[in-house]
Amino acid sequence: MPRYRAIISYDGTNFFGWQVQPGKRTVQYEMEKVVNQMAKNPAEHIRVQGSGRTDTGVHALGQVVHFDLPFDIEAESVRKGLSSMLPFDIGISQVERVSTTFHAQYSAHTKTYRYRLSVTEFRDPFKRNYTGHWYRRLDYDKMALAIPDYLGEHDWLSFAAAGFQAKTTVRTVTRAVIEDHRDEGEIVFEFTGTGFLYNQIRIMVGVLLEIGMGTRPVDDIPRLLAAKDRQQARLTAPASGLYLKSVDY
Amino acid sequence: MPRYRAIISYDGTNFFGWQVQPGKRTVQYEMEKVVNQMAKNPAEHIRVQGSGRTDTGVHALGQVVHFDLPFDIEAESVRKGLSSMLPFDIGISQVERVSTTFHAQYSAHTKTYRYRLSVTEFRDPFKRNYTGHWYRRLDYDKMALAIPDYLGEHDWLSFAAAGFQAKTTVRTVTRAVIEDHRDEGEIVFEFTGTGFLYNQIRIMVGVLLEIGMGTRPVDDIPRLLAAKDRQQARLTAPASGLYLKSVDY
Repeated sequence: MPRYRAIISYDGTNFFGWQVQPGKRTVQYEMEKVVNQMAKNPAEHIRVQGSGRTDTGVHALGQVVHFDLPFDIEAESVRKGLSSMLPFDIGISQVERVSTTFHAQYSAHTKTYRYRLSVTEFRDPFKRNYTGHWYRRLDYDKMALAIPDYLGEHDWLSFAAAGFQAKTTVRTVTRAVIEDHRDEGEIVFEFTGTGFLYNQIRIMVGVLLEIGMGTRPVDDIPRLLAAKDRQQARLTAPASGLYLKSVDY
Repeated sequence: MPRYRAIISYDGTNFFGWQVQPGKRTVQYEMEKVVNQMAKNPAEHIRVQGSGRTDTGVHALGQVVHFDLPFDIEAESVRKGLSSMLPFDIGISQVERVSTTFHAQYSAHTKTYRYRLSVTEFRDPFKRNYTGHWYRRLDYDKMALAIPDYLGEHDWLSFAAAGFQAKTTVRTVTRAVIEDHRDEGEIVFEFTGTGFLYNQIRIMVGVLLEIGMGTRPVDDIPRLLAAKDRQQARLTAPASGLYLKSVDY
């Protein structure tokens, strides 16, 4: 069966995240519905595998997925066909034929997440679903000073949400930057890494916000990482500001 | 009773337009709810008067409204108080005390509307509620050539939607421009005028689209205006791309 890799984007506002869950509208459910329609309702349900989950309200600019079709169709026809069937809050920008050794999750090398924080006192109605909103004063320079402390291989147990279960909590962050978009009322964070625990990015942003507010010392990240205690970092930035930007293979 | 003028913006996606309608969620309904709450549920219901209606799905960047409060409160306290009570898809950016001779609708001199048209073949999920989408080839230069024909005082009967009733259909357009944002996948139109009929802007954009596609001659606008026939202009651009940008007094 030919395998296809697709790059999709979605507005996560009206989804209960990526993964299929009974009775919930999820991105994976909508993707599998159209892929199975395109395959003329095959005997065996075709799964659509993503590079990883995204949570309720989290967006994707470049989620990568793979699926196998029971017959050979040109990649461009798959893109156009799926595009015409998908709901308007999912977009499909690219489809390629790939080898069956490709796996959207296991072949992924690094992932990049973007976090948009709205920092104006005025709560812009057009940003409510697309940014986190923080109206308290933030010291940009303190956050810029602290953010490189996230770089490198660490045990991220202190940044794991309560419900999280995984064999290891060691991950490597290869890029951690802050971007000044205050002329547009925003501060943006980007993180690239080999993988992230459940809620890790939103907790990483939460710690930076506390540093920016001055309620946490600017050099607190190394201490938090060393503590390996999931009780110490409590502020989780809202899902609405988070975007899975790209996946590299 | 002291009168207040407020500038509000709203994401029209989840509203049945501006005007109060029984059983529907409208912007005026939400505004009146919080204004009456702030006034401690006065004996007489306080009306919130807008500069004019906007339809279902139409947005506002700078709608202007007025209302009277039964007691004197500082304008900035009114802004903060209403802001904290309003739903997140309405934002209130400015409140001022004004003379009781000010009327949001009758004192309005001109209004400016903005229309965002998404022109990429890829249907961006983040733009679905905030632009009209047009994937067919459009000749930008033809539209740019035609748009000044809208300027001036005209009888706009050919641009009135079927349901429209008004004493006169004569209005003056003082500004009509096209902006090239194709580097961001968009073409934007702006119109300023002394008033617009029901659906007029969306029909004006529809005519420009037909000119851009070549299904209507580039010099067709003067003929349409002269025809005074509401059957001749049939294409109404989607509400999602339309913004009430500002009102001038």
